[in-house]
Amino acid sequence: MGRKAVCLLSGGLDSCVTSFIAKDKRFDVYALSIQYGQLHTKELSCARTIADVLQAKKHVILDVDYTKIGGSSLLESSSDCITTHDLSDVGKEIPSTYVPARNTVFLSLALAYAEAIDADAIFLGVNAVDFSGYPDCRPDFIQAYQHMANLATKRGIQGNSILIKAPLLHLTKSEIIQQGVHLNVPFESTWSCYQGKEKACGCCDSCILRLKGFMDAKIDDPVAYDEYPSWYTHFKKK
Amino acid sequence: MGRKAVCLLSGGLDSCVTSFIAKDKRFDVYALSIQYGQLHTKELSCARTIADVLQAKKHVILDVDYTKIGGSSLLESSSDCITTHDLSDVGKEIPSTYVPARNTVFLSLALAYAEAIDADAIFLGVNAVDFSGYPDCRPDFIQAYQHMANLATKRGIQGNSILIKAPLLHLTKSEIIQQGVHLNVPFESTWSCYQGKEKACGCCDSCILRLKGFMDAKIDDPVAYDEYPSWYTHFKKK
Repeated sequence: MGRKAVCLLSGGLDSCVTSFIAKDKRFDVYALSIQYGQLHTKELSCARTIADVLQAKKHVILDVDYTKIGGSSLLESSSDCITTHDLSDVGKEIPSTYVPARNTVFLSLALAYAEAIDADAIFLGVNAVDFSGYPDCRPDFIQAYQHMANLATKRGIQGNSILIKAPLLHLTKSEIIQQGVHLNVPFESTWSCYQGKEKACGCCDSCILRLKGFMDAKIDDPVAYDEYPSWYTHFKKK
Repeated sequence: MGRKAVCLLSGGLDSCVTSFIAKDKRFDVYALSIQYGQLHTKELSCARTIADVLQAKKHVILDVDYTKIGGSSLLESSSDCITTHDLSDVGKEIPSTYVPARNTVFLSLALAYAEAIDADAIFLGVNAVDFSGYPDCRPDFIQAYQHMANLATKRGIQGNSILIKAPLLHLTKSEIIQQGVHLNVPFESTWSCYQGKEKACGCCDSCILRLKGFMDAKIDDPVAYDEYPSWYTHFKKK
């Protein structure tokens, strides 16, 4: 019987690459997606496709209704593009898209699932380089979470920790994309845009970071966009 | 404007006393109950009554479907009484009623709520004395959780921590009940039995611990039981 890993799979690019890394490390992948009141379900349908391609042993989708507790622009309906409109601002302060304690909540649900199925590891696609504005994306946080998890679980107190793995923690977006290319990640089935329209908006923070990553990696993003930033169009023309 | 506290309120005796302690300390109480797939909703309807008596500013009930991830006898239908049948066994090993990472998950949802409403504290009714079989009821766990929470939240990284308060941590059940008497806690509106019948069973671990606590505190439990252990009947006759 193989080692089991719970992989938090949002349907975004980072969690998809992370799950492929777990698979590449010979873990049996148990995918866990959280429906937390996002305004669209596009990411979630991408998560389903990715779990299929990955041949995950199981894919559990858990509902946690964050709209009852509130606190993020990602959960509030708006026709505007969710963006700072200036690439140099990204990462400087905690953005309005921050969902309160999201990684803590998601890791805790993953920990519960890992404990229930006796998994050896939890894989999480957090990244400290591009999203340093979120407090719960930093290495210190992951380390503190690991320590807490060791004390919180049956396995932990028996000295056989459930390991929290964040393989993208210190990678740039372009390095993450290069890893993904190496592992044959289906980028066309990942969704990063904060909006859930037919095409990605190309103007929200998440689209901007993604396109910049593809540009830096010198790879064309297979996802269709409504509009492209001028710098990306310039790159594509080359 | 008063200080806000998120109080995890299950409807059980401990979380009820804990919420009254928060109120007594002049916090505005924001009660949070988690419906996690328990086989009955009796506890939850008790939580609603307690939130009313407490004059909680708000009472949020969040659904988290633990049955999708499994791992506890509390979530599996059974006609048997969930018990070790021997009082001296309670606390010696991790019981089948342990729900994987429950306190971690509940605290994380409370942390998210606290961050969203800018609360100063989270109150949790864990107790290390009577339930030492659960890994996530120990002081070390609470301390590690606090450290992690400081790194996970906006307030934490600004040096203004959301404090995790577990005022019952070192109290015996009888001391908890005495505190409750002092604070006029409506014990008749609390529910501890693992089953959700009209009367409490009087034979599950939780009933046994509760009745022993009342006996030690020399107070009669106002809740109705289907049957009483002989030692309690003996106490009542005195």
